[in-house]
Amino acid sequence: ELVKLMDDVHYADIAEIINELNEDEATYLIKLLETDKTSDVLTELDEDVREAILKNLSAKEIADELGELDTDDAADIIGELPNSIVQEVISEIEDREHAKDIVDLLRYDENSAGGLMAKELVKVRENWDVLKCVKEMRAQAENVTRVHSIYVVDEEDKLKGRLSLKDLLTTSTRTHIADVYIPKVDSVNVNEKPEEVAKIMSKYDLEAIPVVDEIGRLVGRITIDDIVDVIREEADKDYQMAAGISQDVEADDSIWQLTRARLPWLFLGLVGGVGAAAIMGGFEEMISKHAILFFFTPLIAAMAGNVGVQSSAIIVQGLANDDLKGSVGSRLIKEMLLALLNGVILAAILLLFTWVWKGDFLTALAISISLIAVILVAGFIGTFIPLFLHKRGIDPAIATGPFITTSNDIFGILIYFWIAKIVLGI
Amino acid sequence: ELVKLMDDVHYADIAEIINELNEDEATYLIKLLETDKTSDVLTELDEDVREAILKNLSAKEIADELGELDTDDAADIIGELPNSIVQEVISEIEDREHAKDIVDLLRYDENSAGGLMAKELVKVRENWDVLKCVKEMRAQAENVTRVHSIYVVDEEDKLKGRLSLKDLLTTSTRTHIADVYIPKVDSVNVNEKPEEVAKIMSKYDLEAIPVVDEIGRLVGRITIDDIVDVIREEADKDYQMAAGISQDVEADDSIWQLTRARLPWLFLGLVGGVGAAAIMGGFEEMISKHAILFFFTPLIAAMAGNVGVQSSAIIVQGLANDDLKGSVGSRLIKEMLLALLNGVILAAILLLFTWVWKGDFLTALAISISLIAVILVAGFIGTFIPLFLHKRGIDPAIATGPFITTSNDIFGILIYFWIAKIVLGI
Ligand SMILES: [Mg+2]
Ligand SMILES: [Mg+2]
Ligand SMILES: [Mg+2]
Ligand SMILES: [Mg+2]
Ligand SMILES: [Mg+2]
Ligand SMILES: [Mg+2]
Ligand SMILES: [Mg+2]
Ligand SMILES: [Mg+2]
Ligand SMILES: [Mg+2]
Ligand SMILES: [Mg+2]
Ligand SMILES: [Mg+2]
Ligand SMILES: [Mg+2]
Ligand SMILES: [Mg+2]
Repeated sequence: ELVKLMDDVHYADIAEIINELNEDEATYLIKLLETDKTSDVLTELDEDVREAILKNLSAKEIADELGELDTDDAADIIGELPNSIVQEVISEIEDREHAKDIVDLLRYDENSAGGLMAKELVKVRENWDVLKCVKEMRAQAENVTRVHSIYVVDEEDKLKGRLSLKDLLTTSTRTHIADVYIPKVDSVNVNEKPEEVAKIMSKYDLEAIPVVDEIGRLVGRITIDDIVDVIREEADKDYQMAAGISQDVEADDSIWQLTRARLPWLFLGLVGGVGAAAIMGGFEEMISKHAILFFFTPLIAAMAGNVGVQSSAIIVQGLANDDLKGSVGSRLIKEMLLALLNGVILAAILLLFTWVWKGDFLTALAISISLIAVILVAGFIGTFIPLFLHKRGIDPAIATGPFITTSNDIFGILIYFWIAKIVLGI
Repeated sequence: ELVKLMDDVHYADIAEIINELNEDEATYLIKLLETDKTSDVLTELDEDVREAILKNLSAKEIADELGELDTDDAADIIGELPNSIVQEVISEIEDREHAKDIVDLLRYDENSAGGLMAKELVKVRENWDVLKCVKEMRAQAENVTRVHSIYVVDEEDKLKGRLSLKDLLTTSTRTHIADVYIPKVDSVNVNEKPEEVAKIMSKYDLEAIPVVDEIGRLVGRITIDDIVDVIREEADKDYQMAAGISQDVEADDSIWQLTRARLPWLFLGLVGGVGAAAIMGGFEEMISKHAILFFFTPLIAAMAGNVGVQSSAIIVQGLANDDLKGSVGSRLIKEMLLALLNGVILAAILLLFTWVWKGDFLTALAISISLIAVILVAGFIGTFIPLFLHKRGIDPAIATGPFITTSNDIFGILIYFWIAKIVLGI
């Protein structure tokens, strides 16, 4: 009954249900249902749930599931298995070609085009004629869910171009492939970063892209569904980094996992706060005559943080989307002008307010001039740091968050008291 | 020569080049190249560049470009034209069927499935036989770049199911479509939000999805390339909102545009800072005896901000990805436990440090206890606000940024001085 009921349910929905079950129920359901369904369910499960279920399956059972999967998904699952059983599982996969393809994929870095690609694709030789091509294609297409393009290779398996199904069907069967194929085809290198592949596929609106090795041989194909996942995960990661959350955590992870992801960044904030306290301690003599200066430190810190986060976010996003033109210098000048404009407007408002509130024009002026300086420096740091990290090959996304707010808190307060001291002539 | 050179360049690359040219050069190039190429270039251009170029084209020239485009892209461009020329442009489109389809699309909200869909699709009637179906299909497929699925409709155009090209080719020509089609097909309502469509297509790994109206009639089709754009834009928007940047701006926009997007959030920060200053002014009498308390206000504000941003980011992301389970109450309890754990660890470190530094245990204790309280409240606010906004139908993403840091600055400092006062017995 349950089996029949599940027959009509999409594997992605079954995965969502199983994510909510306990280990025994989940394992029971996976064993109960046919492998052609459960294999896809397995790939969609949360990693920890999948791990728990696979622990309860024999090598043979796991191998049967993997036998139903596309090579990319099978390789991903094997990559998560404990080393001790990997070999046994692979040896239990019935289709030896499939097993060989999976093993091929295991050697690629997960964070590369090789780690994303599948071996499932349709390829033909340029020296075949259309008839042979159609015959071979039929056999190959059996294992490929969606054909997209037919790739044309030479005798050394080097990618030469592609062929549309339509062209193939409207050409005489004796024509040589070499005479009809399209010699232009986008491809990516097997070592290309996933984000780069995502950029190419989204720019050129591709649904699949062939992957070639260092000498141009066709080694696999990446499909858009996996790239959609890359784009979403990448966006989630950047968002979390900007919020001061390291690692890939979700709301439903354990308190311990969440603490590990969050505490280091809070600790950074604590160190920054202690630094700020130390700086203010150095200006202690001002406290008796100019207590009001101390009341505005949260404002200064907040403005420094906000401006820094804004500037860095714009740069991080520009870098991610490749739409940052011009030199670092011109970028900094633009940001400085922007900061000056914003700073002057905000400082004017603050000057008026503080003057009216406290009736002390000089102090109000000191605070406002400091604010402009702080905003300028915060804009500079927020622009410079991500550009610098990027140049150094470090993901600039870490710069939009506690990193920038903490350093801007410290620099902001230092500049603030220093300028206030000068303006007030202390 | 230039024309020949551009012949081999992808339209997305030409668009990137044109984005960098001045108006005259850009217009010259668009007029020079064939419309079958430039039409696609136009859709890929930055909005302001496109606007400038179209201003220099006659209604007839614009209509020729639109004639080459898919209906979704054509409708988007018409949506940007000044009202005064829309009618003339539409009347100049040669293919009247195409013009009618474009006009149909104009009435849908840009922020809905209707605003994303194209009219290009292949559909057949369930009461046709395979032969008629293949004939009709050939005619329709001419205008459709990628067929994906063939949709099956009844006499009222209601979506009944889909058909694979393979099934069609392996069935006798006399078979009725009703007997061979797959009666299960994912579809979305024309009023569905783009983000929801993106979720469905990425969950079920779809490359195209049919769109139906309120009574189930097939009205269009959304393809994955446009959804990839939705996902990227949505991620960019959320990232910018979290950084305190409203509207959709890029690093290369004008200083004026960037100021408009950034200044309101900075102003919010200014107001918050003034509020914090006012609160501290209320505790002025403490400054002579406990100046050290004032040194730690940036630390308190920073911790309140960081914890608030972390909590809200987790919730915003959980809401966006639909993986937030359990009640609001259990969510808050979990966040409180997490905040307590982090707070106690950080407070212990701070206690030790301040005690050693200043040698005053009671003050160190007051600051540390306040820190725990502040972290608890910040975690509460960071969790509650996005959940509350979401319940009210407001995009919770605005809660992860200046909004949360500003309110947490104020609450944090208020709680801090209040608790310090109690602990120190003032
Ligand atoms: Mg099973
Ligand atoms: Mg992989
Ligand atoms: Mg695109
Ligand atoms: Mg496009
Ligand atoms: Mg795949
Ligand atoms: Mg990134
Ligand atoms: Mg033209
Ligand atoms: Mg539209
Ligand atoms: Mg997916
Ligand atoms: Mg998938
Ligand atoms: Mg489109
Ligand atoms: Mg959103
Ligand atoms: Mg702050």
